[in-house]
Amino acid sequence: MSGISDVARLAGVSKATASRALTGNGYVSAETRAKVQDAARALDYVASSNAASLVTGRTRNIGVIMPSVTRWFLAEVLEGIQDALLDHGLDLTLYDSRPGTTGRARIFDDFLARKRFDGLIAVGLEPQDNEIERLQAIDRPMISVVGDANDPGTISIDDRDAGRRATEHLIGLGHRHIAFIGGTEPHWAHWDRRRLEGYMSAMADAGLAEYARHIECDITLPGGYAASVDFLGDTKRRPTGLVCACDEVAIGAIIAARRLGIQVPSDLSVVGVDDHEFADVFSLTTLAQLPREQGMTAVELLLRHIADPSAPVPSVALPARLIVRSSTGPVDRASSAIEAGTRPR
Amino acid sequence: MSGISDVARLAGVSKATASRALTGNGYVSAETRAKVQDAARALDYVASSNAASLVTGRTRNIGVIMPSVTRWFLAEVLEGIQDALLDHGLDLTLYDSRPGTTGRARIFDDFLARKRFDGLIAVGLEPQDNEIERLQAIDRPMISVVGDANDPGTISIDDRDAGRRATEHLIGLGHRHIAFIGGTEPHWAHWDRRRLEGYMSAMADAGLAEYARHIECDITLPGGYAASVDFLGDTKRRPTGLVCACDEVAIGAIIAARRLGIQVPSDLSVVGVDDHEFADVFSLTTLAQLPREQGMTAVELLLRHIADPSAPVPSVALPARLIVRSSTGPVDRASSAIEAGTRPR
Repeated sequence: MSGISDVARLAGVSKATASRALTGNGYVSAETRAKVQDAARALDYVASSNAASLVTGRTRNIGVIMPSVTRWFLAEVLEGIQDALLDHGLDLTLYDSRPGTTGRARIFDDFLARKRFDGLIAVGLEPQDNEIERLQAIDRPMISVVGDANDPGTISIDDRDAGRRATEHLIGLGHRHIAFIGGTEPHWAHWDRRRLEGYMSAMADAGLAEYARHIECDITLPGGYAASVDFLGDTKRRPTGLVCACDEVAIGAIIAARRLGIQVPSDLSVVGVDDHEFADVFSLTTLAQLPREQGMTAVELLLRHIADPSAPVPSVALPARLIVRSSTGPVDRASSAIEAGTRPR
Repeated sequence: MSGISDVARLAGVSKATASRALTGNGYVSAETRAKVQDAARALDYVASSNAASLVTGRTRNIGVIMPSVTRWFLAEVLEGIQDALLDHGLDLTLYDSRPGTTGRARIFDDFLARKRFDGLIAVGLEPQDNEIERLQAIDRPMISVVGDANDPGTISIDDRDAGRRATEHLIGLGHRHIAFIGGTEPHWAHWDRRRLEGYMSAMADAGLAEYARHIECDITLPGGYAASVDFLGDTKRRPTGLVCACDEVAIGAIIAARRLGIQVPSDLSVVGVDDHEFADVFSLTTLAQLPREQGMTAVELLLRHIADPSAPVPSVALPARLIVRSSTGPVDRASSAIEAGTRPR
């Protein structure tokens, strides 16, 4: 059976470099890594990972903990993480920890304590206080995707800014009666709160605070649909513009509007956040983010952190980009019952 | 530090039982497992998994290989698998192997050969011939979700039967011009072909073979939308009924119909397969399957197979259930251009 020295010799690199290239621990150039991997393949070299991890304390495995894999954003981040880990030759252990399940309790109580990973990536996790204690107790490098950009090791868009810009887009089109839809206790997530704050501050800055209104709903397409069917039916109070916590909620609102015979955008403008894979089909104006890139960036930050635990861990705030499609348009004051009931400014 | 004997003593069971309960290898009752886990928690007992796996050859880890995590069906199966594995105290290593990517090549060339799992679950994998060879070479117990129910260790609905029953539902409502939408080379999946076969045989049995028509599209919501916008625009050839390869394609078709001013179901009846989380919002008639249950069943079959590799491995065909919502209705011969062009039978 071939050993690491045979691989190194064939690839023309040092044993240490060959080991780094195959384990994903530490940096080697893409070219060198490819050369070493080719050599390993040619020699049928497969690292004995269990033995290796006992010797080095490294598992060549990264844990990913997230509250669901069925939401578009989370699944996209997961695929970005997987791509980057495959590229580094590292395994991915998934901890799908849906809030309120016994599975989540077991992950925090038992699974994480086994420390079968060199580092953790938490995606949209929103841990409770006791869960944060558990995460700290395992003492492994960790990076978060989604969260407070002021915390070290956090990758996210500026959610407050996204909520503000979505709102300003509608204000720029002449809308005043703009509602925010999404988020409800106890399912408030960090990013939805920030987007609501951005909406509130944009409304206040434009002198429209009196028109601000928050409609609660689950952050899902069916959640957005159910809440919208309810509040859009009230013609007298119906807003002309809708800022949605995310695209899934926005698409639910558009479907509800169609069912009620409300034209988008002439009766109702709708803007989301995400650029979901269905956004184009629904002609949805949105603040686009790139979840795959966020996942890949998380891996890069985590591997740097593992390689040099003493170096400071940066945070990365990625920009959200406004994509204007035809779900938003100028306000039509003449046909709006709510506008008829307010004095023009 | 507490050992396994301390845990066994506290739980009032044998060491072997305690070990089985904590490792997920072999069967113990849910009650006993809970008792042992409580004891382990009380004693702060955490198994040293690397050392344990060197001794026993068991990694306490199951590999899951699937072509995407962003499709609804696949993500739901994954959550079912995760729930069942958490319940057995087993880790889940994810191999997200999108067709045509270098990541997929690396999974088959390198990652699987490391054998860092006690068994594999392949979900909708559709392996190529060379990939099947790799899977056989790793010589680990394996279960498939989605596939030919004649193969041992396969869990699926009877896809041919689902396609047939969807078609018969429309025939029963008086439709004759019924098209099938979904599937295209080279992205044909096993289940889509079977559903098309079921559609074809139902059409033939009803004497409607001359009206059968297959419209190709990618098996996604945007794919169904794009293809539908194209073929629904041709009024003279527009069918009155549409059997869709899956709900995502069906929802895309419904959105396209709305955009073209085609009323569902009075002008066009649409039926899907899945019962996708959005099916209810779109009032979609569908053949429902339960992907989470399929994932959980896969884990049970795999663990039985690992515990007793010599026992025959069964296949499980789960029933699909017709859910009638308002996307299907009786055919309106008077208003259909295509019906006007054919003699009534």
